[in-house]
Amino acid sequence: MYFHALIPYKPVNPKTRLSSVMTQEEREEFAEVMLGDVISAVRKTGCTATLLCTSPYTCKEALVAIRKEGLNEAINWALPQFHCPALIIMSDLPMVTPGSLQRVLSTKADMAIVPGLGGGTNVIFVKRPEPFRVEYYGFSFRRHLQIAEELGLTVEIIDSMRMSTDVDEPSDLVELMIHGHGNAREWLYEHGFALSVENGRVSVVRNGEKIV
Amino acid sequence: MYFHALIPYKPVNPKTRLSSVMTQEEREEFAEVMLGDVISAVRKTGCTATLLCTSPYTCKEALVAIRKEGLNEAINWALPQFHCPALIIMSDLPMVTPGSLQRVLSTKADMAIVPGLGGGTNVIFVKRPEPFRVEYYGFSFRRHLQIAEELGLTVEIIDSMRMSTDVDEPSDLVELMIHGHGNAREWLYEHGFALSVENGRVSVVRNGEKIV
Repeated sequence: MYFHALIPYKPVNPKTRLSSVMTQEEREEFAEVMLGDVISAVRKTGCTATLLCTSPYTCKEALVAIRKEGLNEAINWALPQFHCPALIIMSDLPMVTPGSLQRVLSTKADMAIVPGLGGGTNVIFVKRPEPFRVEYYGFSFRRHLQIAEELGLTVEIIDSMRMSTDVDEPSDLVELMIHGHGNAREWLYEHGFALSVENGRVSVVRNGEKIV
Repeated sequence: MYFHALIPYKPVNPKTRLSSVMTQEEREEFAEVMLGDVISAVRKTGCTATLLCTSPYTCKEALVAIRKEGLNEAINWALPQFHCPALIIMSDLPMVTPGSLQRVLSTKADMAIVPGLGGGTNVIFVKRPEPFRVEYYGFSFRRHLQIAEELGLTVEIIDSMRMSTDVDEPSDLVELMIHGHGNAREWLYEHGFALSVENGRVSVVRNGEKIV
């Protein structure tokens, strides 16, 4: 079976909630490395990928569509053009593995969804993308279940810490440094980030200074 | 196959990190309801359960051993007495389901482990408990992998948001209220807790006042 993945991506000034621990240049580099880990996992499952980018970007491993509108508008522009099952996956999930993605892609339901911590949506897989539409931001997990219900789709909710943990805030770096396998984890170590255990709690330090 | 579950439990003044949002009496009630959800999931998989309690406690659904020493000492006292595979599961995992536990119990490895967010350990399943020992607190996930390696055990790491999210702090209540199925979620709603969506973020309110 042929699947196609959509990965929204913001090349310029991404991940602003990491501003307290990374410069803009570092955030752009780190976001790109995380994207690379996601593309790599997606490709290992046999999917091809299209990036939906907010500004010009070149990528050897994926097709690129530049869409200047918002996240929802860009995805909802792309979905009706699909003639095969579609995977919509966020670019800030560097802990994703081919095995965890396989749990999503092998669903017997019409659709599989992986919630993000805090009520968001990190991964959606729809077998018939044409009538589907997304509504990201806020409590999007509940909205996506409602949209599926309105369309009469059966839904499997995939229980995965790796895919539920998107890297947005400094505290999310702890999980990535513990459980990551890919280049994003390496990038953190190469840039002076490290794990530290103090008073029975695991924290992240950068160049010896505690940041989380 | 016969399994036995060990569930450490503190009946008096538990969950002190929830003190800002619950009285001691409420924390004791809430901890007991969470425990009930864990016992219920454990029993549905066919396991029997023993609670390791720090003070006298009666439970209709599980055996009870009162152990006044620390968490590690109590579990390490119990493990060598086992003549069947042992599941060690924390009592503050009210999102656990029989299906998610089944992924742990059906491992082909000598041992399965579910990390907690932040470097802890939420569930351990060891097929031969006698030589095993636990070292909770701090970066226990890493320690438990090291102990398994020292004993030459193969390990499967189970990727589960439901079991990785232990309920310790007010912010953890968000996940429970979104994804819980059991009585702990109900208890929160009955006690004035509710979800609220504001400025695109999901938060928890109690009696109309924002707490997370």
